[in-house]
Parts: sequence; structure tokens; C-alpha cells
Amino acid sequence: MSDDKSVKTFDDILKQTDEAVLRALREWAEKIVTNAQREKRVYMEVPVRTLSNVHYDEESGVIKMGDRVAQREFLNVGHAKRFLQTALVAATIKDLVEEGITTSLRDVYYRIKHTIPGTHENTVDEQKESDKVIEDLETMLGFVREQLHVFSKGGKGQLAGPIQLEEIVPNPDGGVRTVEIDGENVGMGGWSVPPIAEPERVRIKNVEAEFVLVIEKSAVWTRFHEDRFWDEHNCIIITAGGQPDRATRRIVHRLHYDYKLPVYVMTDADAWGWYIYSVYKQGSINLSYLSTTLATPDARFLGLTISDYHEFGFPKTVKIKLTEQDKKRLKDLRKYPWFKHKAWHREFDLMEKENFKMELEAGSSKYFRFLTKEYTPAKLESKAFLP
Amino acid sequence: MSDDKSVKTFDDILKQTDEAVLRALREWAEKIVTNAQREKRVYMEVPVRTLSNVHYDEESGVIKMGDRVAQREFLNVGHAKRFLQTALVAATIKDLVEEGITTSLRDVYYRIKHTIPGTHENTVDEQKESDKVIEDLETMLGFVREQLHVFSKGGKGQLAGPIQLEEIVPNPDGGVRTVEIDGENVGMGGWSVPPIAEPERVRIKNVEAEFVLVIEKSAVWTRFHEDRFWDEHNCIIITAGGQPDRATRRIVHRLHYDYKLPVYVMTDADAWGWYIYSVYKQGSINLSYLSTTLATPDARFLGLTISDYHEFGFPKTVKIKLTEQDKKRLKDLRKYPWFKHKAWHREFDLMEKENFKMELEAGSSKYFRFLTKEYTPAKLESKAFLP
Repeated sequence: MSDDKSVKTFDDILKQTDEAVLRALREWAEKIVTNAQREKRVYMEVPVRTLSNVHYDEESGVIKMGDRVAQREFLNVGHAKRFLQTALVAATIKDLVEEGITTSLRDVYYRIKHTIPGTHENTVDEQKESDKVIEDLETMLGFVREQLHVFSKGGKGQLAGPIQLEEIVPNPDGGVRTVEIDGENVGMGGWSVPPIAEPERVRIKNVEAEFVLVIEKSAVWTRFHEDRFWDEHNCIIITAGGQPDRATRRIVHRLHYDYKLPVYVMTDADAWGWYIYSVYKQGSINLSYLSTTLATPDARFLGLTISDYHEFGFPKTVKIKLTEQDKKRLKDLRKYPWFKHKAWHREFDLMEKENFKMELEAGSSKYFRFLTKEYTPAKLESKAFLP
Repeated sequence: MSDDKSVKTFDDILKQTDEAVLRALREWAEKIVTNAQREKRVYMEVPVRTLSNVHYDEESGVIKMGDRVAQREFLNVGHAKRFLQTALVAATIKDLVEEGITTSLRDVYYRIKHTIPGTHENTVDEQKESDKVIEDLETMLGFVREQLHVFSKGGKGQLAGPIQLEEIVPNPDGGVRTVEIDGENVGMGGWSVPPIAEPERVRIKNVEAEFVLVIEKSAVWTRFHEDRFWDEHNCIIITAGGQPDRATRRIVHRLHYDYKLPVYVMTDADAWGWYIYSVYKQGSINLSYLSTTLATPDARFLGLTISDYHEFGFPKTVKIKLTEQDKKRLKDLRKYPWFKHKAWHREFDLMEKENFKMELEAGSSKYFRFLTKEYTPAKLESKAFLP
């Protein structure tokens, strides 16, 4: 995971990964051919990604995938289409890597979509089919989707603070150039986290910060940025504007694992915000095989909670009554093993009992700088984090 | 509108605007007092923002507000609450400007929300009430919300190309600093357009580009950026990732009016995408008083259309059948005066007749660089734009 400081040029870093991906693709394809020749049967082995092969690993604190593997056969009516789709996507990825192009999941879907000659059957009908195949290929090849040159959407993340980075950007006609990023000298929008934030494309050069503060909402992040919270508290502030994209989670993960920075997360006091915390922390069930690159199990929850409402004496006008959907989501949270801590269940109980939720912006009911000047410093001082 | 090159320091630019806002606030409040003393009646005059006072101005091509003004009275049961809200928001804006803080609509809502002593009545119950009052104040004071230090959400826009900018960022303890932006040397996420992009905060220093290409979707923008389309075609590429925020529209507007750059817009071929085009072009009905700062009526539509489907020979797999909602939205578009051009109605008819829509990503069904290497250059060459 750690950035290799011995690699000579930036071009090399990206090239190394690209070559490793192409090698893995070739070996994967050759294995299908070899097996076919030996067993007279065309199939590929795909790790099982259903819930039955996923478990929460208490020790590491992440959702992990088991060892079960299924065979996807070419001459099986139930498998043939998925087999074909996998081959098409694999060929597309080979093109992308060879041409030095990155692209979106949606583009890959259109790229492989065509009508099979002589039939009215399409290779794919919906994007979720090609998305699933890309996930299969991630597990089969051992590279994350971003290393296969495929991203989801444009970047959503915004970052500021004492950190120097370097983006390695391929030139359309070959080679790469580098773009220097100084996290202390970014505009009000911050550094826009790119759609792919793997070490071969985003190189962390220097980190002066002592911790990472993840803020759920972009508008709240703007307040922290405007107040130069990162300067006063020597930290990196980052937001993904709601549900985090993979690139933002990847940066948080890398800052924690490569630079040993503690990670604190701030969200609204509601089931949706708390779930977002758990996405940064544990990863999501259907991407369990990525937990080791995306999750940050040591992340701690800074706030907001219903206990905070009482402790910091918020006015009652900030209370928002729970909807049926809020209550349902809260029930869901109770079931997640990583929310099994007593401290969290006390908060769940409290929210249910008092029947309200609360937003980060509620801080402004006191004064505009309440979060940056009073609440967050107090939490950092007392270390009153939730697990 | 034009950046004033004679202003000495950056601090001055922001200070000048802030002082003008404070002056306008004071004059506005004094007028209420003077009128009260003279007429024994406490009221404020609020420009009417309903549809009846809004019209589409053929000549300028923007939606404009008429002259009608309504009186909002303090001692009128139907007006009292709104009067109170307006006074509270005005006081909050005064604080924001004096303290040099910018904040979100949501924060302002919480700031003014409290229970009126001795009653169970809240000053505001929902954010839309304070939002409407801020819009009232924009029209009454003659400053846009951003100049009143209030933004909607964090920045959504991403920009790249031959342009140099300077962000003027206030320091939390007074004064400002500047952040230099080189649009040719941004990372893969581009320059993140800040939540407030008024001339006193974002200074356009130098523009080499010859036109602006607005791209609806962030993922498609990423392809144009990766291919350095802006370099090959000497243009600025910008996206707001869907429905544009005000800051992104403001930057597009300023590049057109201050630098005379033609603006071309690319969206999906569907009613939603075409509506997004019209937001860049004409502004929206409820913000008609802002058309002159946000709209770019000279913008032209580059694509995608159903005609393009035929002209560029897309495979039929890219067709997406219209839903009932698509058809309904298409009907809505027909009613807008700025879509009254024959050329547009031909496209509406064609879409209805052929009963499908199409996304920008459909270009990848040909090859990944189809949009950047073939489609867009062909459109720019032929100048086959829609009005």
C-alpha cells in the first residue's frame, strides 16, 4: 500500500501497474484456454460475492470475503451470457490499459453493448450487468477497478490542509506529466479529488498534518475551510459531499495506513449520516473484497449524536422529528456487527426514545463558528469519540 | 460586470463590495423607519417574483422581472411573520458581512430559527421560508445572494483549459490572501469552482481560450480533460455534474460577457439534458431577477440530438425508450418560449416520433474517444448548433 519512494520516474509507477494488469489479464485468459484443453470444458473461476461468502472479521474490523469460488461455464445456458460479458469487458480493459485511457462504468457498458449477430439478443441490457462483471474481474485479477482504468463518476471529494500531493496524469499521446498540489494553497473548493486516487496516479509527497477530519457535507466542509480549521488544528479536512465515492475513501484509507494519521468522522445525527460513517470505516457488503483498500476500521466517530444535543445545550428548534424511514434505517444499523458496541446502542436508544434527529448545520443556531471554534475542538480535546 | 483592473489590492475589491452591501442594508432599513415615521405604518417594499411579474424578453433572450412591487406590512396578520423573517435574515447578513464569514442557506435557516418568546410559534419552520426571504433581499438590495455571503452548497463545478484565475480568500482573522489557479495545470478533478464565484472573489486574470465548452456530465468531462481537448481546441471545458449550481453558471456567464467567448453546451439527448442547457442559457423562472448575472442567452447547443443519432450512425443498442415522465417533460419544454425555434421543435417531434432518448456516453459504443476526436470536432467545424 505504501508509496514506493525508490521508483525512479512517475511514468514508471503508472507503467508498472499497467503492465502488471496486462500480465494478469493474459494469465487469466491463458488459464481458461489451458483448462479448456485439459478438461474439454470452457470455464472461468469466479470468487463468490454473495452474502453467504462474506463475513465481518472482528479482529481486523472489516467485512471480508470468504474463499468460495464458482465456475462460470461457456456451454451452460445459465452462464453463457455472463461468460460472454466477462470476456467482452476483459477485452475492453485490455484496450483501455494499452491505450492509456480511463473511463466510466457507463462508458464500458455502452462499449460492450451490441446485438449478437443473427439474434435479437443484446450482450448487455442494463449497466448493472457490466458493473457486476467488472467487480468479478476485480476479484479474479486482484486489481481494483481504478487500476483497470475504470471509475464510477467524476470526483466528488474536496480536500485541504497541510499535505503536498502530486497527480500523475497521462498525456493523450503517451507519457505522463505531473501536477503539484499544495493542500495549504487551494481555492475555496479545495483540491478536487480525482476519480482515480490509486498510488500510481496520486502520490502523497509530504504530510505535516496530525489527523484527518472527514466531514459529511460539502457546505459544512466549506465553513471549516474558510475558518482554516486545518491550519489551527494541523489536520487535513476532507468531504465527499454525502455518500463517499471510492476515490475519497481511498485517500482517507491511504492517509491512515501510509501516514498513520488518526481519522475522525463528522456526520449529521441521523441513521443516514451514521451509515456514511460506517462506509468510511468498514466498507460495504457488496464490495467486501475491497475492504482492505477502501475501509479504515480505526476511524472514530466525532459527532453528531443525540447526546451532543444535551451536552452542548442546543435549542429545541434544531430537533427534526424522525420519519418512519428514519426509524427503519435505525433498525438496520442495529443489525450491523460493526455497530454492536454498547456506546452506539445507547445512541440508537436515545434517538428512538427522544424521537428526533439533528443536522451538523444545527451548530449555526448558536453561532456560525460554533462547530469550528467550540464543538469540534471540545471533542478533540476530550477524545470523546464513538468506536 | 467586468473585472475592474484599476483596483489596487485584492483586499479592496472584496471590501468595496462588502461596504456597498452594508450601505444598501442600512439604507433599506432607514427607509422602513422613515416611511414609518411619515406614514405611521411599518412596511417594506418587495418586488413581486410570481409568474405574473415575469416575462421572457425576446430581445435580450432572458427571463426578466417586471416592475410590480408589493408592500409587506408589519401590522398585517398575513404579512407579520414574513416581515419578521426578513428583518432576521437582514440582521444575519449584516453579521456575516461584518465578520467576513460566508455560509450556506441551511446555516442561515438554523441561525434565524427560534421560538418566539411566550409562544409556541417558531420564526421559521422550513428552510424554504428563509430561502424565499433571501431571494426577497436580493431583489430589494440589488445584490446577489453570494455578495450577501450566502451560498447554496459546496462547489460542484470542474474547469480546465487555457485560463488563469485568482481566488481571493478571506483570512479568518482579517485580510485576504490570493490563490493562483492555472487552468492548464490542474489535476484530473480540474479546478473546483468555489461556492461563490463573483468577481470580488474569483478574478479572471488571463484567458487564452477561444470558446467555452459546457459538458453536462462530470464523467464525460473527465474524458475531455484526459484527452486534453482544451489544449487541442484552445477552449475551456467546464461541467457542473448535472443541474448547474449558480457559481458554475456565473463563471460561464462571465467568460461570455467579459471575454466574449462563445459558449457551446453538450448534454444528453433527453428532455432533462435539454432543460439543463436552457438553465445555462436563460436562467430559471423563480430566479428571473438574476438572469442578467447568471444567464448566457447567446449560448448554443452543440448536441446531443436525435438527428445526431442518424447523422453519426449510432448503433441501435444506444436507444433508450422514452418513459411517460420523459414524454411529459418534453411537453413542458415545448411550452418554454426560448425553445420556440423551429429547429428545436423538429428535434422534439423527432424524439417523440422515434420514441427514444440517448446519452452522451453512447459515443463509447463506437470508441472511447468518439466524442473528443470525431463528434465534437465535426460539430465545431460545421457550426451545426441549435439556437
